[in-house]
Amino acid sequence: MTTDTFAKEIALQIELDGQKVLLGGMAKGAGMIHPNMATMLALVTTDAAISPACLQEALRRANDASFNMVTVDGDTSTNDTVVVLANGRAGNPLLEDTANPGFELFCEALKEVCQALAKMIARDGEGATKLLEVQVVNAPGPEDARKAARAIAGSTLLKAALFGEDANWGRIICALGYSGARFEPDRVDVYLGGLLVARNGAGASFSEEEAGKLLAKEEIRIVVDLQAGDAAATAWGCDLSYEYVRINADYRS
Amino acid sequence: MTTDTFAKEIALQIELDGQKVLLGGMAKGAGMIHPNMATMLALVTTDAAISPACLQEALRRANDASFNMVTVDGDTSTNDTVVVLANGRAGNPLLEDTANPGFELFCEALKEVCQALAKMIARDGEGATKLLEVQVVNAPGPEDARKAARAIAGSTLLKAALFGEDANWGRIICALGYSGARFEPDRVDVYLGGLLVARNGAGASFSEEEAGKLLAKEEIRIVVDLQAGDAAATAWGCDLSYEYVRINADYRS
Repeated sequence: MTTDTFAKEIALQIELDGQKVLLGGMAKGAGMIHPNMATMLALVTTDAAISPACLQEALRRANDASFNMVTVDGDTSTNDTVVVLANGRAGNPLLEDTANPGFELFCEALKEVCQALAKMIARDGEGATKLLEVQVVNAPGPEDARKAARAIAGSTLLKAALFGEDANWGRIICALGYSGARFEPDRVDVYLGGLLVARNGAGASFSEEEAGKLLAKEEIRIVVDLQAGDAAATAWGCDLSYEYVRINADYRS
Repeated sequence: MTTDTFAKEIALQIELDGQKVLLGGMAKGAGMIHPNMATMLALVTTDAAISPACLQEALRRANDASFNMVTVDGDTSTNDTVVVLANGRAGNPLLEDTANPGFELFCEALKEVCQALAKMIARDGEGATKLLEVQVVNAPGPEDARKAARAIAGSTLLKAALFGEDANWGRIICALGYSGARFEPDRVDVYLGGLLVARNGAGASFSEEEAGKLLAKEEIRIVVDLQAGDAAATAWGCDLSYEYVRINADYRS
């Protein structure tokens, strides 16, 4: 049994030393946890020639920027799985040194595949009506950016506000506050779908009507500028709807 | 504006060296966060004669076993406040030494007052239909017990299952799994309102009908026995309902 509502697949092609290299991915997941079965599964295949160590490192980097940055309900699964398989059929010179420029190219491609799948999972979150993308920029460090982005994307109250299409920027700054990220409250700017809703930690004067139009979309991007450094991170999530409660209230029946 | 639905007050009396000492408390709170106003407020008064240092220590202990163990939606507030005032009118010998047996007695009384208020806040959680009490027992250490109890009480999926009156013990063990508490999965017993639903980490054979009756109550107690030590902790929460989503989706309108 699954609550997925669509197939999650992605494929792309890159060139390594003149050789076409393909990557394909598929994933399954809608709720972060269904303790009686597999929850989030992702399988990525490639015909790249790459050593196990390099492939593992490439996957670690891709996971940290994709599957590890998505949340539907904050309930970590007992059994998430991401697998990448490479058969070397592309015939590119074997990638076995992370210093090889081709390795960076492969990492970027793998990250792109994993991010595409992670976003599909968030978009298909149980009961979700919207895909939420949270970009935290100009953070003092990468961990600050990651903590902040994940806390905002995971805020129950923000998720409910987005379902209600309410430009509740205070909940964004509040989640930032308990995220553990380092920042100066009076230097935080918040953009909702490109609209400045808070400047230097205080509410900006914006058109609720314009905000409402932006929040009515199926994809909502929140940008939080900490003005405290040059690190950035992106997290993905979804809104919290009545349907989420219904699905999980009568899950076993 | 507040979403509280009832007044939260408690009073009790103890005796210190033959002197009657009164404690009274009141609190306000239903959602853990309303960024534009005070969220959870608690005020405790007593006529005990107690030094500021002892009173601070007593409050710290009481908070850790009450307000710091309650969750409605996992969104930490920017502005929770707990205040205790003592005027010394009781005439008891001044409590100024934490080694004084009277201090322990006062601490217990203050804890009782704070726990009563914390439970009222959970019971009145936005949209809540049930009060959830999670007791984690026989944990290897106090922090393990606290982490486990809070993670279980805060699990979005468990909260939705309780709203649906679904004896989904797997979600309890799963939350335990990501709580960070130390435990042996195959030694965990889970009781739902006194009914054994999981033994040694696996599902026990229990009557779904009986479980349904227990889950239909307005107070649900979950006991998780880690069989790994002698530490214990209790956390309080509530279920996740459609009404919670409604309240927070149109919060500003």
